[in-house]
Amino acid sequence: MALFSTEEYLGRIDRTKERMAVAGIDVLIVADPANMNYLTGYDGWSFYVHQVVIVAMDAVEPVWVGRGMDANGARHTTFLKTDNIIGYPDHYVQSLERHPMDFVADIIQQRGWDKKRIGLEMDAYYFTARAHEALRKDLPNATFADANLLVSWVRCIKSDAEIEYMKQAGKIMEKVMQTAIDVVAPGVRECDAVAAICQAQIAGTSEYGGDYTAIVPMMPVGEKTSTPHLTWTDEPYPDEVAVNLELAACRHRYHSPLARTLYLGSNPPRKLTDTAEVVVEGLDAALNAIRSGVVCEEVELVWRKIIAKAGLEKESRIGYSMGLNYPPDWGEHTASLRPGDKTVLQPNMTFHMILGMWMDDWGFECSESFRVTENGCETFADFPRRLFVKS
Amino acid sequence: MALFSTEEYLGRIDRTKERMAVAGIDVLIVADPANMNYLTGYDGWSFYVHQVVIVAMDAVEPVWVGRGMDANGARHTTFLKTDNIIGYPDHYVQSLERHPMDFVADIIQQRGWDKKRIGLEMDAYYFTARAHEALRKDLPNATFADANLLVSWVRCIKSDAEIEYMKQAGKIMEKVMQTAIDVVAPGVRECDAVAAICQAQIAGTSEYGGDYTAIVPMMPVGEKTSTPHLTWTDEPYPDEVAVNLELAACRHRYHSPLARTLYLGSNPPRKLTDTAEVVVEGLDAALNAIRSGVVCEEVELVWRKIIAKAGLEKESRIGYSMGLNYPPDWGEHTASLRPGDKTVLQPNMTFHMILGMWMDDWGFECSESFRVTENGCETFADFPRRLFVKS
Repeated sequence: MALFSTEEYLGRIDRTKERMAVAGIDVLIVADPANMNYLTGYDGWSFYVHQVVIVAMDAVEPVWVGRGMDANGARHTTFLKTDNIIGYPDHYVQSLERHPMDFVADIIQQRGWDKKRIGLEMDAYYFTARAHEALRKDLPNATFADANLLVSWVRCIKSDAEIEYMKQAGKIMEKVMQTAIDVVAPGVRECDAVAAICQAQIAGTSEYGGDYTAIVPMMPVGEKTSTPHLTWTDEPYPDEVAVNLELAACRHRYHSPLARTLYLGSNPPRKLTDTAEVVVEGLDAALNAIRSGVVCEEVELVWRKIIAKAGLEKESRIGYSMGLNYPPDWGEHTASLRPGDKTVLQPNMTFHMILGMWMDDWGFECSESFRVTENGCETFADFPRRLFVKS
Repeated sequence: MALFSTEEYLGRIDRTKERMAVAGIDVLIVADPANMNYLTGYDGWSFYVHQVVIVAMDAVEPVWVGRGMDANGARHTTFLKTDNIIGYPDHYVQSLERHPMDFVADIIQQRGWDKKRIGLEMDAYYFTARAHEALRKDLPNATFADANLLVSWVRCIKSDAEIEYMKQAGKIMEKVMQTAIDVVAPGVRECDAVAAICQAQIAGTSEYGGDYTAIVPMMPVGEKTSTPHLTWTDEPYPDEVAVNLELAACRHRYHSPLARTLYLGSNPPRKLTDTAEVVVEGLDAALNAIRSGVVCEEVELVWRKIIAKAGLEKESRIGYSMGLNYPPDWGEHTASLRPGDKTVLQPNMTFHMILGMWMDDWGFECSESFRVTENGCETFADFPRRLFVKS
């Protein structure tokens, strides 16, 4: 059974079709797993094979096309009629002779869409160069347009039902971060700490369970805090060292990430405590600048000015739209809080604002996930914003 | 510090160059994260942005090109000289004006490779249609060849050092499967069972910790066992129901998957127990057919004949090469145990043989991960092969 009401899915499809009309697209081939889920409810770890959802202006419902063995998964999780769930035979999987997109092209032909203008998600993770070539070759009478992020932009503003799941993820997140701060300690192996954190992520609360997160815990230690995307080892934590905790919780594929830095020991270096102070000041100020009607880059400027006073600068963006997603990223790749981004904030847009300072051989991170409201913002988790020191 | 010796990496690069020479490729652009790791040691959860390793016939070392903030991660995990680690500025990330592959093309030009024949991994997960278009546009004097799976085929035969990690993953796997069979019980929420399983995956053993697996636990319940790729809910397990346990353990990105089916209750349906018996018989026989020199499709035929006697058939392949990998798949997409696959088995090839029977509204799974030896095979985990029944 699909997670949201059929009305909600049909509303999402309508908004997608409005954007298709503006872009002059008749048929949209959606390969991004989050977009497939958003439009149909489909939820399974099957994005390691090619699969798509096809939205056509002249059809009420999208069509799900995936591997035969996953068609039952689509029956269990989508709102689609059985006619609109089509599995391809297994000899299309990782074959040198045929590509699953050949099968998708056949469906497009059968439904009379092969002379239409077809939109493709050109930079979506699982839409490979060869998938693109196969469609071009198989559909010589179609014209093609880049529809990258078209659905992702529809996803930007969440419904109240979606916000509810993000709030639940925020509640789970509080338990996850507290677990991290409790278990990370000198002498404890990194893997044992991460094991406890993952346990907390998935067990969730007594009211609702957790889902897998689109990114695993990223917890670099010591010098490795100078870079954000290292995971963990089985070494024991030393004493007098900083650990970055970039974590998330997930509820029905909706995320609420949160990052903090924990210092193990009694003598955190002055540069770390000083940086933590100004970064938290900047985070508070940037969050205070959020409200409906404000432009993304204006938020970044508030942050930039505060850290400039302390002689700091940060090249990378300070936040991004996020929510429903699958590995490898909970970010939506649409609005970013960075110079040049003119996106106007609207209620129920949801962001992860992450102030990560990655220096030569050390670093500090602090973040919040929130929704935009009419007059401000509402964070999903309630957790102190500071450098944690545990001696 | 890289995980393997520099000699081992250079050997892998040599074998890659041998295949490049045969294919007439001067410069290979590697975007598959497992292939990037294999050739350089690079290990970070940064594959959600575009990144590549470039192997050129006229250069000893590959070049890593990734996001600026991940360059320190490359310094920490690869054997490469600093000159061969190049970070791109953050304004290339998810930008409408420029693509990270524009930066990659600049590097190729600077190194004098822009008139060469360039190999691309056309169907690799993170090599998108737009990445391909950007390279074609930016390098008008180059010629291009499809080098999909070129490095993956080199990865097929593992070194003894790699096998050691897969054996360690197998030891972790035994604990993980036992945990699953212990915790899954009527009345227990699915999420709480999965939480315990993930805890076991990452804590590993007292000797070595676990890594994240390329696929999360897939544990469909009841009717959902008719499809393989559903994950979990927060519903409590009912009584008299089957649960598929398709799990893995991972050590330094090397996997050892294992699947079993657990029946909760005292009255497993006859069709389930009968199917379990013949599937295990088929699995045993197919494993017995493995040895150096045998062809992949011959192994499948052994299985096919046994289940045919019981009136069963299975459309999908019964196994695939696997080992080092990242989400979304631990499979290597090279050799498969299926009709038509003429790959000759060689010592230290490693497979996951999975006999999954997904019926209309029920199913059964049993699998083994193993390495090929001169005269047979060696499974990585030691776990009874049968339907587990827990009343």
